[in-house]
Amino acid sequence: MNTADLGLPVDVPSTALFTDQYELTMLRAALKAGTAGRRSVFEVFTRRLPDGRRYGVVAGTGRVLDAVENFRFGPDMIRFLRANDIVDEETLDWLAGYRFSGDIWGYPEGEVYFPGSPIMRVEGSFAECVLLETVILSILNHDSAIAAAASRMSSAAGDRPLIEMGARRTHELAAVAASRAAYVGGFTSTSDLAAGFRYGIPTVGTSAHAFTLLHDSERDAFRAQVDSLGGGTTLLVDTYDVAEAVRTAVEVAGPELGAVRIDSGDLLLVAHRVRQQLDELGATGTKIIVTSDLDEYAIASLAAAPVDAYGVGTQLVTGSGHPTASMVYKLVARAESAGPEAPLVPVAKRSTGGKTSIGGRKWAARRPDEYGVAEAEVIGTGDLPEELAGRELLVPLVSGGEVIAREPLDVVRERHAAARAGLPLSATQLSRGEPVLPTEYVHVGSGG
Amino acid sequence: MNTADLGLPVDVPSTALFTDQYELTMLRAALKAGTAGRRSVFEVFTRRLPDGRRYGVVAGTGRVLDAVENFRFGPDMIRFLRANDIVDEETLDWLAGYRFSGDIWGYPEGEVYFPGSPIMRVEGSFAECVLLETVILSILNHDSAIAAAASRMSSAAGDRPLIEMGARRTHELAAVAASRAAYVGGFTSTSDLAAGFRYGIPTVGTSAHAFTLLHDSERDAFRAQVDSLGGGTTLLVDTYDVAEAVRTAVEVAGPELGAVRIDSGDLLLVAHRVRQQLDELGATGTKIIVTSDLDEYAIASLAAAPVDAYGVGTQLVTGSGHPTASMVYKLVARAESAGPEAPLVPVAKRSTGGKTSIGGRKWAARRPDEYGVAEAEVIGTGDLPEELAGRELLVPLVSGGEVIAREPLDVVRERHAAARAGLPLSATQLSRGEPVLPTEYVHVGSGG
Repeated sequence: MNTADLGLPVDVPSTALFTDQYELTMLRAALKAGTAGRRSVFEVFTRRLPDGRRYGVVAGTGRVLDAVENFRFGPDMIRFLRANDIVDEETLDWLAGYRFSGDIWGYPEGEVYFPGSPIMRVEGSFAECVLLETVILSILNHDSAIAAAASRMSSAAGDRPLIEMGARRTHELAAVAASRAAYVGGFTSTSDLAAGFRYGIPTVGTSAHAFTLLHDSERDAFRAQVDSLGGGTTLLVDTYDVAEAVRTAVEVAGPELGAVRIDSGDLLLVAHRVRQQLDELGATGTKIIVTSDLDEYAIASLAAAPVDAYGVGTQLVTGSGHPTASMVYKLVARAESAGPEAPLVPVAKRSTGGKTSIGGRKWAARRPDEYGVAEAEVIGTGDLPEELAGRELLVPLVSGGEVIAREPLDVVRERHAAARAGLPLSATQLSRGEPVLPTEYVHVGSGG
Repeated sequence: MNTADLGLPVDVPSTALFTDQYELTMLRAALKAGTAGRRSVFEVFTRRLPDGRRYGVVAGTGRVLDAVENFRFGPDMIRFLRANDIVDEETLDWLAGYRFSGDIWGYPEGEVYFPGSPIMRVEGSFAECVLLETVILSILNHDSAIAAAASRMSSAAGDRPLIEMGARRTHELAAVAASRAAYVGGFTSTSDLAAGFRYGIPTVGTSAHAFTLLHDSERDAFRAQVDSLGGGTTLLVDTYDVAEAVRTAVEVAGPELGAVRIDSGDLLLVAHRVRQQLDELGATGTKIIVTSDLDEYAIASLAAAPVDAYGVGTQLVTGSGHPTASMVYKLVARAESAGPEAPLVPVAKRSTGGKTSIGGRKWAARRPDEYGVAEAEVIGTGDLPEELAGRELLVPLVSGGEVIAREPLDVVRERHAAARAGLPLSATQLSRGEPVLPTEYVHVGSGG
């Protein structure tokens, strides 16, 4: 199969090369040492939220499941690894037959998370688990960063629709994942056709300044657009003079004009003036969409303005100041020997100077207060305390190599809204603060 | 062709849907109005550099050429557009036959740029040019942001090698483009196997903390790695106690040990201690690689430390504080009517409140001072002044729809080094400042 024919900007026929080289050299050394088969538990977590943020949002889980399922080393890739002498023939043979056969548990996609939350847990042989580190982190770190920004923006926007329009500000395929994560975080639609095609996210869009400039007059441009897209379309009114454009727009489309879009200038002031003008022209149902360099703070500052929808680009796809989450994928337990029944030993990096972690396979549960509002993220090793029964956060995602937890994106989006609603109200404050839930570590009874 | 079989995380069979919906609705309206065929000139430029940066770096041009060549609407995509009623049948017919047939000029990849530099110019009918806006901007905005950060880091690193290892911190395909852009900006190698596979960038990597934790002792882990990868390998020495690990490493691998890697702690202090210890153990040729949360400032602060190579992750792939360039794609001139001989009229947005631009098709040239050092970025409409002959920056990239300027990545990398070396010395100061060259606008004689 010649993937160049697809015209994809990157000619990579599977997810298996989205991998740091050291995963393969570790595999090679472990195969030779006889330790590759030791049963291992890896966990994904973050040591801290981005500075000032109150909660994180798990996003990308569905993409991780696709990536794990399609993690195969085809003949082209094996040839590449051989030609570059990256691993030896024994390792290449092993890779050629690779198929993840272990188990993955995780916070369901859309859930919120806090420092230390075991967002995903991957169990199997060391060999099969270590290979997945890079691609799992790529997906979760990117998508969760975007979803967290989206969630803050959707809190700020309240009931007003949010349009994701950042494709031009990020890598063309990252943009598609960003649309997906934005939808999880509460956005309503996207400008990105690929996101509509791939994920079924509703797409929107009408015209840019170039369309007005193409025509001999703004009136010609508006007429051309209304002739083609109907009077319910959105006309862009800030190419020349806004007041003049609004007048022309209502003349051309009539008072039933769907919406006007403002993409520059002092949005607060201009929105008020345009609303007044539209009302005076009888276009009381015509909506106002604003789209210029918005972030969650700008959205919040427009809460009292006569604005009907927001379009967000740059700040959404760059995570509003935090373009990546800082999740890591750490070995937390492994068997003493290669047999399937060998007991697990908790392990952890212990050097001074940071980056330490807590060993042992973990559970997590969110403890509610007497009013049903979450009050702590409880993370533990050993047995789950009785009072947290039924509140466990990790769910099975892959069992014996089979994906068992695919779900529609709308379910994920609703889960996020519900999870956020279950947090203390201060979670949605935009001001900088501590994580809205403290993380508590406990160790109960047996297990490691 | 079923692209799902490829296991790619995004199932999009060409670059044509990496497009905002409004490009298609504008096309639809222009086709109906009879204006779609007007000859048009679009230019890519930025109004400003990221705050404090001295220069920008053009990167992604080669990827743009691939994207333009593969911008085709296949049957699946036409069906998607029809099913979602995004455009009408006439427009779908037009799209099904789409193939860019115009001309593209641009700054050669690797060149530096400044506010207003016309980094790329796309000429053809309005219809064929407007469609390319989103994907061209996605690529240039992402790749140039990464290359600019890489260039600052490579200035700071001097002759010491720089390893790109940020794949886990960004979208899995953005990571591949980031490796490419980092290489253009002066990085030496990458951890990302997909970047090696796709672009031939040298790949590196040996082991992580998980490998040490997998084994019963650090000594066992080091022995396993040396047995497999040889004594020239790089041993990671900060899982437990660094001094103990260095002693063990030299015992196991001998004084010919290739390198040790330090991934946490106070790098300056630890590097000095480790160097002294290695020298005392006779491992005077063993190199020290540091890899913990580096950016250009941390790299510069280690200039006097006994460090032999740097590995950079997060800050590289997130553009060191500026994850996207702010390039725009603007219609600057278009014909008065649809005929191929109709004269071009300069056009520009004119409303108050920012986002204005300068109409007319532009040339650009870099003027040297008497010592041959660049002193101004000169941008003009009309004729090129005689004293700038031979200094034009734009080169032909696509002619009549045919890509005519593919080049190896090493050529691009060398071009960037040369372009940066031609700037005033203050270009490579890391402190915040104004663009190192002023942009001058001129209009000479005829033309528009």
